[in-house]
Amino acid sequence: MSEHLSSWRNGAAKQAILDFVASVVNPDLPTFVPLADRIATLDNDGCCWCEKPTYAQFYFAIARLKQMATDDPSLLKKPEYKAAYDDDMAYFVKLDPHMGGNVDLLKSIVFETHTGMSDDEFCKMAHDFLTTAKHPRYHVLFHEMYYQPMAELIRYLQANGFKVFICSAGGITFIRSVAEDIYNIAKERVIGTNIGFETKMTDDGPVVMRTEDFLSPIDDGPGKPVNIQAHVGRKPIFAGGNSDGDLHMLWLAETNSHPSFSMLVHHDDEEREYAYDIGSEKTLRMAPEHGWTVVSMKEDWARIFPWE
Amino acid sequence: MSEHLSSWRNGAAKQAILDFVASVVNPDLPTFVPLADRIATLDNDGCCWCEKPTYAQFYFAIARLKQMATDDPSLLKKPEYKAAYDDDMAYFVKLDPHMGGNVDLLKSIVFETHTGMSDDEFCKMAHDFLTTAKHPRYHVLFHEMYYQPMAELIRYLQANGFKVFICSAGGITFIRSVAEDIYNIAKERVIGTNIGFETKMTDDGPVVMRTEDFLSPIDDGPGKPVNIQAHVGRKPIFAGGNSDGDLHMLWLAETNSHPSFSMLVHHDDEEREYAYDIGSEKTLRMAPEHGWTVVSMKEDWARIFPWE
Repeated sequence: MSEHLSSWRNGAAKQAILDFVASVVNPDLPTFVPLADRIATLDNDGCCWCEKPTYAQFYFAIARLKQMATDDPSLLKKPEYKAAYDDDMAYFVKLDPHMGGNVDLLKSIVFETHTGMSDDEFCKMAHDFLTTAKHPRYHVLFHEMYYQPMAELIRYLQANGFKVFICSAGGITFIRSVAEDIYNIAKERVIGTNIGFETKMTDDGPVVMRTEDFLSPIDDGPGKPVNIQAHVGRKPIFAGGNSDGDLHMLWLAETNSHPSFSMLVHHDDEEREYAYDIGSEKTLRMAPEHGWTVVSMKEDWARIFPWE
Repeated sequence: MSEHLSSWRNGAAKQAILDFVASVVNPDLPTFVPLADRIATLDNDGCCWCEKPTYAQFYFAIARLKQMATDDPSLLKKPEYKAAYDDDMAYFVKLDPHMGGNVDLLKSIVFETHTGMSDDEFCKMAHDFLTTAKHPRYHVLFHEMYYQPMAELIRYLQANGFKVFICSAGGITFIRSVAEDIYNIAKERVIGTNIGFETKMTDDGPVVMRTEDFLSPIDDGPGKPVNIQAHVGRKPIFAGGNSDGDLHMLWLAETNSHPSFSMLVHHDDEEREYAYDIGSEKTLRMAPEHGWTVVSMKEDWARIFPWE
């Protein structure tokens, strides 16, 4: 089965994955896990696809502001529309909450760009963006900015009877718009944050609209176990993340009655991708104590992106 | 394939189901539906299992009140605990919202009996109840009170590549506790109403607790399209219900770009089950206009319960 993981270098991380999977699929071993309980949950931003210099969904929001300002120039009176229209990325970099950005303004940008349409229309917008807009550093389409080794890991887990879920702080519908194509993960196996949904009755029947609200807890930190319990009803036996927002999920896997595997993608390859620990310090510190596998992008991955 | 539906009498309803399924699985027909889009959503109470004289979950709440009062007799000061302790069903019948019951008291009973424990503990409580408590009329365990023709329909749809979801106003975890056994539906394919979830951090890691809140919209009426969109990300092509709380879901299937099938279980068999239209009037009236199939329990089902 190891040919599934061809972009993974032979090393401790790959071996740990192979050993874990072999131990849970063999019915003759005490570590065997029945099919129904083979649940994997993987974070998306920074775990399955690139999140730098900022989230793909934030680029989408900026592109939406620009489009909206183009359609209705009266919006240019508002600084966020003006900045988007002028491609003034410095304005948006300053909004990063890690940089002390204005969280209320950020939230209002999300609501302005992500609500007011049906969820089906939004899904199409997200898909159009991800399959036509390009990453500023690599000049590659955003939907090609996923990590090839993680795409291989997903298929390897699926080939071993795992149900693989994405569990992301990013928007459910945003990720669903491409998850089937790039990850082979069905829409119903994407868990994420989402703003409000509301049923609008029309002459043609119900239409689910997006509203200025949140549908369930933000899918980050302590919100991940909540949304996993609500969506799946089981704890993962395999969990993958890359930041402190994934800490609760990585630990949740350990509370399973079955053997479990938690892994952390470590961004340590400035040359091929990015190197950063900000926002992952706690989880990196906990990893050795808890026996979580730290995957070095530099050492463990022969290839990072599918187009390399 | 029709041997799957052995508890269905040959008639218009069964034929309509067979014809619809045959039309969507045949790739040579223009009505063909790809596997990913073969989504079915079925209501639970009154569609897949018996909801009379009242909901199984309400009997569970009363049993919980009684147990709690037995453990802590000081609770007997409150009338709802006293009534449960004394098996005074007349008290609870009067709480039915259709009978002008006290909705605030009903909600507080739900919170008192359904929260304060971890969701895993609650799942075990629900499972214990459903597999040991008996229905007052049939003296059969509650988890055997499902409709055999619906259990067959679920397996028939699954054998034809459908992903079958329960979409119920009942509690997610309550239904999940038995859904795999009785319906062959995995926990992650149960959508329902649920009270709040919250992650509590312990020395042994995160534990998902049940709190006095609601996690997402009540999964009834206009809440059903919302929860289906959030959970599945697709509209059903096959929807089944029995009451006006299912109206939005039955209509939602019609808004699909594919051919769709909506069906309504009609409770018209007082002898073998119950006969009632209260709360289903609108949907029964809409059925002929919309081409929804009305299934007569009396005429279309040779057998109602698995133990007949």
